Amino acid sequence: MTARTDAQLAFLAEADALKTVHRATTLHDGSRSENSAEHSWHVALHALILADHAGPGVSIDRVIRMLLLHDIVEIDAGDTPIHGQHDTAEQEAREQAAADRLFGLLPADQGAELRALWEEFEASESPDAVFAKSIDRVQPALSNLHSGGHSWREYDVTLAQLEQRVGTKVARGAPALWTRVREMIAPWFTAHGK
Amino acid sequence: MTARTDAQLAFLAEADALKTVHRATTLHDGSRSENSAEHSWHVALHALILADHAGPGVSIDRVIRMLLLHDIVEIDAGDTPIHGQHDTAEQEAREQAAADRLFGLLPADQGAELRALWEEFEASESPDAVFAKSIDRVQPALSNLHSGGHSWREYDVTLAQLEQRVGTKVARGAPALWTRVREMIAPWFTAHGK
Repeated sequence: MTARTDAQLAFLAEADALKTVHRATTLHDGSRSENSAEHSWHVALHALILADHAGPGVSIDRVIRMLLLHDIVEIDAGDTPIHGQHDTAEQEAREQAAADRLFGLLPADQGAELRALWEEFEASESPDAVFAKSIDRVQPALSNLHSGGHSWREYDVTLAQLEQRVGTKVARGAPALWTRVREMIAPWFTAHGK
Repeated sequence: MTARTDAQLAFLAEADALKTVHRATTLHDGSRSENSAEHSWHVALHALILADHAGPGVSIDRVIRMLLLHDIVEIDAGDTPIHGQHDTAEQEAREQAAADRLFGLLPADQGAELRALWEEFEASESPDAVFAKSIDRVQPALSNLHSGGHSWREYDVTLAQLEQRVGTKVARGAPALWTRVREMIAPWFTAHGK
């Protein structure tokens, strides 16, 4: 039991570094950039609160577990801003290497189980993963709305681009939620001629 | 559905402020104080990873839900450092007022359900709440170990005080975990004559 506990504590200590990974979004008050650890808490809370929007067969508890883990690879691989340019293949290779290292810290059975959950999230095909992705995309859109459009300004985003990069993914798992959030967000783009 | 969604989104927007509540503990690298949102993520992850240590009848998914919500009242009431001096009755009154306001933002049925979950955590009597409290106490002890004893120095804590304030609570829900963590922590106190 001690070796197992030590492996688990080593993973949890390493996980602390997710608090130092900065994202493109800011806090709602605009005071600083959000980090990936507090983002992970906020999306897990979104899943819990917005559970009504999940489709049939979705387990909110599995979605929450996925969201607690979904960004853990960023400790090694960094965050990839939704509206930024990046080399997808290179980013995926970095994330797979990070997953090897990080899930490899855990006891083998637990590492394999949680890596499978992370891979399921990344594949975005199961009902749980589709809803988790919707939540992961809607939270930064709401943050940008509340912070006065921080990332939208920084990356010069149009409403059409937001629809494609964010809206389609939110709508896939939570269509009524996207309808409502789009209504809340659209005036900002109109006001800014975007 | 729209009024319900709007109430949920209002709660989630208000929750963003938990990212601005500072705790006594620092990140493991000592670079800055930890905030209550990233702490909430980290304890939820601890519950997931250390689930082996939960007693019979504990639902890890309910524990995770509790831990996602456990500090939400700090948005209004602030954090109470484990090793600091405070007026318990006054703090409880502030937290109850915060719970009224924050859970009151949600649709009535959901607000009542989640407030009951928070009250269950606070009461620390059910098996789920006892394990959640163990996890909430062990994570800052591990943070202090990794940061070189930050809060232990700041509050001049002895191992006997740590046993009483932290050890008894961790051991109540996860006795073997405390045995192991105590072994990891004790040398720091010996080395510092505490």
